[in-house]
Order: sequence, then structure tokens, then C-alpha cells
Amino acid sequence: MNAPTKEILSQDLLDKTAQLSEEVTKPFTGSKKIYVEGSRPDIRVPMREIEQTRTPLHMGPEGGSEATKGMSIANPAITVYDTSGVYTDPDVEIDLLSGLPPVREAWINERNDTVELEGPTSEFGQSRLGDESLDTLRFAHLRKPREAKPGQNVSQMHYARQGIVTPEMEYIAIRENCRLQELRETYEEAGILKQHPGEDFGANLPNEITPEFVRKEVAEGRAIIPANINHPECEPMIIGRNFRVKINANIGNSAVSSGIAEEVEKLVWSTRWGGDTVMDLSTGKNIHETREWIIRNSPVPIGTVPIYQALEKVDGKAEDLTWEIFRDTLIEQAEQGVDYFTIHAGVLLQYVPLTAKRLTGIVSRGGSIMAKWCLAHHQENFLYTHFADICEIMKKYDVSFSLGDGLRPGCVADSNDEAQFGELRTLGELTKIAWEHDVQVMIEGPGHVPMQRIKVNMTEQLESCYEAPFYTLGPLTTDIAPAYDHITSGIGAAQIGWYGTAMLCYVTPKEHLGLPNRDDVREGIITYKLAAHAADLAKGFPGAQVRDNALSKARFEFRWEDQFNLSLDPDKAREFHDETMPKEAHKVAHFCSMCGPNFCSMKITQDVRDFAAKQEAEEGMAQKSKEFLAQGAEVYKTL
Amino acid sequence: MNAPTKEILSQDLLDKTAQLSEEVTKPFTGSKKIYVEGSRPDIRVPMREIEQTRTPLHMGPEGGSEATKGMSIANPAITVYDTSGVYTDPDVEIDLLSGLPPVREAWINERNDTVELEGPTSEFGQSRLGDESLDTLRFAHLRKPREAKPGQNVSQMHYARQGIVTPEMEYIAIRENCRLQELRETYEEAGILKQHPGEDFGANLPNEITPEFVRKEVAEGRAIIPANINHPECEPMIIGRNFRVKINANIGNSAVSSGIAEEVEKLVWSTRWGGDTVMDLSTGKNIHETREWIIRNSPVPIGTVPIYQALEKVDGKAEDLTWEIFRDTLIEQAEQGVDYFTIHAGVLLQYVPLTAKRLTGIVSRGGSIMAKWCLAHHQENFLYTHFADICEIMKKYDVSFSLGDGLRPGCVADSNDEAQFGELRTLGELTKIAWEHDVQVMIEGPGHVPMQRIKVNMTEQLESCYEAPFYTLGPLTTDIAPAYDHITSGIGAAQIGWYGTAMLCYVTPKEHLGLPNRDDVREGIITYKLAAHAADLAKGFPGAQVRDNALSKARFEFRWEDQFNLSLDPDKAREFHDETMPKEAHKVAHFCSMCGPNFCSMKITQDVRDFAAKQEAEEGMAQKSKEFLAQGAEVYKTL
Repeated sequence: MNAPTKEILSQDLLDKTAQLSEEVTKPFTGSKKIYVEGSRPDIRVPMREIEQTRTPLHMGPEGGSEATKGMSIANPAITVYDTSGVYTDPDVEIDLLSGLPPVREAWINERNDTVELEGPTSEFGQSRLGDESLDTLRFAHLRKPREAKPGQNVSQMHYARQGIVTPEMEYIAIRENCRLQELRETYEEAGILKQHPGEDFGANLPNEITPEFVRKEVAEGRAIIPANINHPECEPMIIGRNFRVKINANIGNSAVSSGIAEEVEKLVWSTRWGGDTVMDLSTGKNIHETREWIIRNSPVPIGTVPIYQALEKVDGKAEDLTWEIFRDTLIEQAEQGVDYFTIHAGVLLQYVPLTAKRLTGIVSRGGSIMAKWCLAHHQENFLYTHFADICEIMKKYDVSFSLGDGLRPGCVADSNDEAQFGELRTLGELTKIAWEHDVQVMIEGPGHVPMQRIKVNMTEQLESCYEAPFYTLGPLTTDIAPAYDHITSGIGAAQIGWYGTAMLCYVTPKEHLGLPNRDDVREGIITYKLAAHAADLAKGFPGAQVRDNALSKARFEFRWEDQFNLSLDPDKAREFHDETMPKEAHKVAHFCSMCGPNFCSMKITQDVRDFAAKQEAEEGMAQKSKEFLAQGAEVYKTL
Repeated sequence: MNAPTKEILSQDLLDKTAQLSEEVTKPFTGSKKIYVEGSRPDIRVPMREIEQTRTPLHMGPEGGSEATKGMSIANPAITVYDTSGVYTDPDVEIDLLSGLPPVREAWINERNDTVELEGPTSEFGQSRLGDESLDTLRFAHLRKPREAKPGQNVSQMHYARQGIVTPEMEYIAIRENCRLQELRETYEEAGILKQHPGEDFGANLPNEITPEFVRKEVAEGRAIIPANINHPECEPMIIGRNFRVKINANIGNSAVSSGIAEEVEKLVWSTRWGGDTVMDLSTGKNIHETREWIIRNSPVPIGTVPIYQALEKVDGKAEDLTWEIFRDTLIEQAEQGVDYFTIHAGVLLQYVPLTAKRLTGIVSRGGSIMAKWCLAHHQENFLYTHFADICEIMKKYDVSFSLGDGLRPGCVADSNDEAQFGELRTLGELTKIAWEHDVQVMIEGPGHVPMQRIKVNMTEQLESCYEAPFYTLGPLTTDIAPAYDHITSGIGAAQIGWYGTAMLCYVTPKEHLGLPNRDDVREGIITYKLAAHAADLAKGFPGAQVRDNALSKARFEFRWEDQFNLSLDPDKAREFHDETMPKEAHKVAHFCSMCGPNFCSMKITQDVRDFAAKQEAEEGMAQKSKEFLAQGAEVYKTL
């Protein structure tokens, strides 16, 4: 095997990847990376703990007095879900050339149902490896790929259905809970834990997520754990309507721009801000090599659309695509460690003409590739006819299906039409086939849908696809705001997440206009994080409101630094604050720039509290007095 | 009367206001300012017409052939609602020192129910006018205020209830329709006019808005026309659930920053991007003079919170407020031309203690001022006890009530509590009193509300306040994203607008952090425009989808310039596009940076259309052949 070393890499790539920019790895201020250990020492679940300063007693809910002057009470540290991997762990030295530590490796090995291969078995993978001209940009420490032993199925669904709780499942249970039980043991429901009842539209949100609950959800197909055995660096996570709503960020170079170092930087940047999975949608040269760098350095599941690469292999001519080329691409990518594949197997020949009268026809790239192939050959989509063959590949590596919605609407006018819903019903049919193979499935969804038509999408999906997790792009609720489509779609995403969608694919401000830069990625991710969180609050995910409560209390008490640290984007919150009031002193000031120092509604609330406490005390006295009179006003009651 | 002239104004102010920056007044590219005339020549309703380029025939829905090569078909110009006043009319010379043309002056005069006063009658107004030190910053052409003749009521509601259709009402009917009827006469429903049925939750959206419909809605209190007789420069607009959802932008200096020229610039900037009304929330020095500049130059209704200024008059001491000071402030501002007043008359003594156990107490400034006053005096809110007196003032000038929600929640934890809903019911009681005086009313609403609790807010408001228009701030659907609260609240705003809210008060990215600059104002407005539009689509406002359809078609056909011009923020869309593909040639290129030149899903759709057309033709042939056979395959049928 050709084993490239650091020395062979181009100096340019070395320079660029030697270290990530400081910005993408620096720890969050006021935060501490922690690990919660599971039932065995190698289950170490990363979380971020946000410390809080103390509240002076005179600002607490009970008001204050002379006696309490100078006294203060502690505020709990808030534990939040952390997707950023070891990049935000100051104790870990990052070396992109080596890749991340393989946290799942031991678990995969001890299951003893896989074998290590000598090297890539795909034709394409072998030819790339044999091409010495690529040595200068090849990832230096290629892993030997693994696959299932003959006759074995290594999917998490397969284990789940056998009643096995894998370390991955336990890891996920701990991760989803974010130490809520510990918080519950210390605090009362009335305080930091206060949460409004959700409207969950038939979801089943347990009060505490147990490893067994994770297993059951995966076994029944309501949730997936994207976790290719060839991506042991991946920190396990789950996608399902009975868990936290997740978000995906897309990265990927294209023919026009971007390179390897930039893509790795975008990956790390995405996970820093909260991307739960990342799709690599590269279409340019060297995408095989770029993908290797991405996967080896990714703490989150990586998804791809293999048909994009297959198309490059036939020089962009859709009609030249064959099952054999596609199959080789699946194996190539599965051996690298891609965790889920978007497969547009629902674009059937019969649906294609249904799109002809649409305002914007077919807008999914994968969908249009397959439509073109179907038309050129006047044959059924080979992804559909070979679906069982694809399942056979998926289960050898535990790659999950993301069944693509190739006929999703490209504008509000085309939403919810027969082409879209016809394809959705076919995806349901395919879901059943995948489940017969114990292969994990999620379903991709629209697109562009006005608000009054979003709910029916979710309902149709749940019914047609038997509650397989829904993974939607937006949807955009209007078409008239290019440059703001992260927002037009964030509105739709929050709603569909509330209704039951398990993962939201982000949209950046550059959607429809160009390729997102790093700032766009951050803007897109934060928008989707807040939409997903709004959905968690609305469906009533246990403990979701803790962070809102903590931040609101910090805001009310003018604990500016706590407010920044608790927010989804502390850097920007701080930056915006400092634009108007840059002085350090202002961050402890009990007023803000909106009202100025002479008037503050928050201060007045203190008076209200003092008044209410006094009133209550007086009422207590009055009540006592009344009781006294009722009893005959005798100081010594006759027994 | 002290009549300051240009010569006295400070050179600094002259320089700053001599002309607005080019950016805030330049016409929109590809757009033409038009005026639609009503039943009389002085009803000239401004709109913006967006021209479109032609579609080459081979890109049309029918596909193309050799025969159609080089041929093209026209796309209709799209007419959009225009709030920008004459600032975007290249034929009008803008002179901030003179103010805008008084479009309503003749209508007000001919009703013959008002008198012109010699000068301000409020004590404060008189003292400011008498203060020569203010001459250097006073607006140069003070209008003489008007008021109703004794015994007269000059509110639009009063006219409406007498069956009078005012020019304002006709103007509004034309404005709301945006030439939809003309479009309908030319095009078919299947094309540009295609629109999905809305879910209107009991609203009553007519197919065409007539002046009589406007009158009826105003008469019944379901809509208001904020139109002070002292603001004749205002272009009439309506706020009601059966009309387009409107948005408000807040401007205003504070103790910390900003000046007169900056505020006027922000006003013009706000209307440029689509602010339907503007609230002047100034709290600093010279707010009387600043307000004059703003009103004289504002084509949209101006709202204020008079208690803010009253508080300044008592040096910030809420307990020193009196009815007399407040009354003088109302008259002062009404004579200047403020179109609606936020009045926190629902903050009753009995509700104040209900906020004591809240996480964030009282966060409305007006609410906390009144709460403090109530507590200090242990008396009922003087705005409540003097409510009928306030109505008497309002109807003399036709100032509309915006009944303030002083007890709105400041965090999701405090949403929908007894303090909030108690106040809401009191606002309903006050609505009835105002309506007895034929005074127009809208009701302010929250605040911070998680998604699953938004609908109940709307329902409660409709029931408690008898369908008086609802005017909400956001609501923010989560508290954890400071710096992105235009988005957390845009999500809630779109939903509550859909459910029936008539106007959405914008939130900028600086909310909770600092004062918005001009970019923040634009970001906040566009976010709220798109949210309001998403709501219009969802409730099914007639013609709302036209712009979406046109933009989507332009996008599909790679008419980049049309796509930009049709968008809510053409400048930013163009700028984002040019970041990746700056060359002019790319704007006519039939591909974009997302997929590059070698592959394009939109191109493939052309093939699909060609195929479908061919298939249809073949099916037509087959059908004919079948019929032929069924008839006995005789070429000449026996008659």
C-alpha cells in the first residue's frame, strides 16, 4: 500500500493545514469542555459547561434588605450539547495531518463482526491510490478500510433489533440528556427547570432518555445513528423526532472555487457553531482526496450525494451513468467512512412528466440527473431497480440512507404537488425494503413551501414513510427574499421541526446566489440552531427551556458576560453590545444603551417585588388578624 | 408666531439635512415609480412597478424548437406595494427643510370640520416655541396645527360609521390591490396568478378590496387608518387582519447617541425598505424638535409613546407624573401630527403584584413606569381612570390608540401568564370605551412566546378585544440567541401574522444588546417584510403569490437581473451574487456558481419538458389511433 507521509505533501497544503486558524478552535469564553463517563471508561461524552457568576441577593426573586446587602447566591453551571469535538478541548493537541482520535474503534473491534481490508477495494479508490501525482495532497495517514464479515450486518439498526444496546446508544442517551437529571436533583421545577408543556403532535418524548429508549427507537426505524464503521472518529449522535432536533451544514468546493484546506476549515467551523452533521457536496477535482481529509478530521457524521461524483466519472453526461459506476462510487465512499448517502431512488420514470408544467421544474441536482438518465434510456431509475443491491452495500459498513427528494419543489407555487407526493410515497416503499435489510433510513424533504402547506408535508411523510426520520431543507416560506433565505427558510424549519422533523438542513444567506463563505456558514448554522431549539421548546423536549431560563435570568440581572456566554453566538452578542457600549465597566453596569442610565424597566421590577413581598406580608398579617377576630379575639383560646 | 427660517438653523444641521445620503433616496434598479389615480385627480396612489426582461421561447413552459429559435415572450411588469414616499420618485426634488407635500391637506380642509390654530396650545409646545436657543435646530416651516371644531369628531372611524367613504379609504383600497385586477384581466390563473388556497383562521379576505370594504372594516373596528389631521404628508395606509400584514420600524435617539439628522435619515431609510409605520421612541434632549423634523418628512404614520416624554418632563421620576403633565404631552404631540399613541392604560394596580414571581418581571418601559407610579401612590393607573378624557383628545385630531401591553413577557418562561392575559382583557374593556367615542384602536402584543403558545395569544386577543387589530412585537420564540433576535422573533412574527396579527413590530439584530445602526434597521425591516409576506401567503391574501411566482420564474430562466429586482433587497442579492461571480457576463449566463457551467438542474428540466411534450403528443396520437380502432377502423365513417 502506498503510504504517503508528511514529507511528500505539498508545502502549500502543509502550511494551510498545519494548524487551523485560531478562530475556529479557541474555547468558548466562560465555558469548560467536560466529559460525562458512561458505564465503561471509554464512553466519554463531551459536553460544554457554561459557568455563571453569582446573583447579588438584592436582585433575586425575593428582593433584598439591609441584612442581605453584599450577599449573593450562586447560579448553576449550564450544560449544553456540544458538537465541536476535541477542537474546543484545550487539553488536546490538534494535528489535522493525523486526524482525530478514533473514539469508536474499540467498540467496532470488540463486536468482532468486521474485517480489516488491505486497502480500498473500489476500482476508483485503487486508481487514486496508485496515482503518485496525488501524493502531494493525499491525507497522510490513510486508515485501512473495514467491512462486515461475510453474512454479517453491522448496522446499528441490526444490533438494536437483536436487543443489543451498543456503546454508541448509551453514548447518545447520555448526550441527549445533557445532565438534566443532575440539575433536577439540585433544583426545583419552579426555577431554572420551569418549562411550558409542549405540543408534540404525537411524538413520544420521555422524561429521561435511556440507552434502552435509544435502542428501541432505532430498532423501530424512528431514529437513525449515522455511524459508518470506517468513521471511528465520529462522536455518536442520533436523528429522530423523539430526540433533540438536529441540523446539517453543507460544505464542499465546486468547479468554481475552494480547496482542501478551506473545506477542512469549514468543517471544523461548522461543528464549532453547532452543525450536528456535515454534508460534503464537493463537485470539483480531487473530491476523493478532499473527502478523506474531511472524514479523518470530522467529529460529526459526514453525508454525501454519491451520484455527484459518479457524474464526474462520466464527464458530466447523465445518460452515461451506469449501475456499475455508481456501485463502485458507493464502495469507494463507504470505505472512506461516509456515514450517510443521499440516494435519489424515488425519482421514477412515471413521475418525471408530472414536473413538466411546474414553474421551476426539477431543482434537485440529484433528481435532475436521474430524471435525465430515465428519459435518455426510457428505463426505470437504476437506483430504484438496484435498491436491494444498494442495501447490501449499506449494511456492510453501516451507511444510512438519506432517501433524496429529487422532485422537491423549487418555489412555493410547485409545493405539495403530485410529483412531490408521488415520490414521497415511493420513498416509503423503499423505506420498508431498507428495513427488511436492517438498514437505517431517513427521508429528505422540501424545499419551498408556504406556511399553510407545511403541516401536510409532515403528516404525509409520517404516514407514507412509517415515521422514518424526516430531514428537510428549510422549507422556504416565500421566494421573494434572496440574500435572506436563511430566514425565509428558518421560519419554515422551526415549524416543521416542531411538527416532527428530526433534522433540518441549513440554508445560508447565499442560497440561490453563490457559494457561502465562512461568515455565511456561521450565519446559516446559528439561524438553524435557533430554529431547531425553538422547535425543541415547542414540542416540549425535556430540559430544553433551561438555557432560555438561565439566559433570561442573566439578562434581567444585568449579568452581561453570563448573557453572552449562554447565547448561541457569544462572540457576536459581545461584539454587538460593545459597538454601543464598548467600555468594560458597562458590562457590569446595571443599565444598557437602550434606555440609558436614568431609566430602566428592570430596576423598577425590583420595586414591584419589594412591594409584592410587603403586600403579601401585610395580607398575611391581615389574615392572621381576621382569624384572630373570627376566633373571638381572645388572646388565650380556651382549649 | 416665531417662524424660524433657514438662515437661523445651525450650519451643522443645515449641512446634515441639506440632502439625504444618495443611498437612501436612489430609485430601485429596474423599477419605476408609478401613481394610480382614483376617482378624483388628487387621489394618486404610489406604487413601484418592477419591469422584467423577456423570456427566450426555448425556456418557456412549452419547450422550444428550431422554429422558435431567437423568439421571446414578454413577462409582465410586477406592481408592488410602496412605502417609500416621494423619496424614490426621481421627478420630485427632496428638501428636508420644507418637508413633504401634504397629500391629504385638501381632503382634510374640504371636510370642513376642523379649524386652524394660531400655534401650539400645549404648554410645553408653547414654551419650546418661545425658546430662541432652539431656533438653530427647529424645523423651518412649522405648520399651524389644526383641531376639530367644537363638538366634531374627525376620526376615520367616525366618518366610516356615518357611511362616509373618505378619500383616504379609497386611496387605501387602490393601494392594497396593487393593480391585481389589471393583471387578472391580462393573465390566466394558471400562470403568474397561481396561488395556493390560504388558511385564514376566520379572517375575511375579499377577492378585491373596495373602498366600501375599507369603510366597513374601519367602522367595525377591525382595521384602523392612523391619520392625524396634523400629518397631512402621510400617505394613507390601513392596519387590519383582512388587509396586507404591515410592519413597524422603531427609530429614536436615546440619552447615549444619535441626533436629528441621523433620525430623519433613519426614517427615510426605514420607509425605503418597507416600514409601513415608524415609531419615534426618542428619549433624549430636543425630542420635541426632532419629532417635528420626522413628521414633516414622513410619508408613513408616526407612532410614539407619550409617557416617555412625560417622564423626561419630571426628570425621570415616575412617581412625579401627573395627569396634567401627560395631558399636555398628548396635546403637544397630537398638534405636531403623531398618528398613533401607545398608551399603557391596562397596567392596573391589581396586576402589578402578579409580575413579582416572574423570571424577568416587567420589561416594557411604559409598563414599568406606570407600575412604579401605581405602587408609589397606591392608586389606580391614571391612564385608566382618565381614559375617557384621553379619548376626547384623540378624536379631536384622529390619533389612534395603540393600547400598550405593559405587562408583556420578557422571556419565554413568563409568556401567557395571568399578568399578561389580565391586562389583555382590560385592553378589551378599554377598546369598547374608545369605540364609544369612535376612536380607532389597535392592541399591542408580546414579546417572548414559544411557538406552541403563540396561537392562544392570537385567539385570546381576538376574543378579548373584539377583533381590534393586533400589533405584536415578534414574538421571540426562544431567548438563547441575542444578536439573532430579528430571526428568533421573525419566526414568531410570521406565525402570529398568519394567525391574524395585523402589524408586526420589527426587531433588529441589536435587540437586547444596543441601539441599531442603519444596517441593523435594514436587516430588521427586510426580515419583517419577508415574515409579513410569508403570513400573507399563508392566510391567502389575494395576489400575494404573484411576486413569488415572478421571481421564481426569473430564477428558473436565469434572468438574474429580474431576480434581483424582484427581491425585497435587490442591492444585497446583487452584492452576494457578485461576490462569487462578479463578471457582468455571468448575469446573463445560464448557470450559477453553485453547480458550475458543466451541470445544471435547471437545464435538465428543459429536457424533461421537451420529453413530456413529446409524450403528450404521442399519447394524443395513440388516443386518436385507439378511437379510430374503436370506431371500426374505417377511414370514412358511415354517417
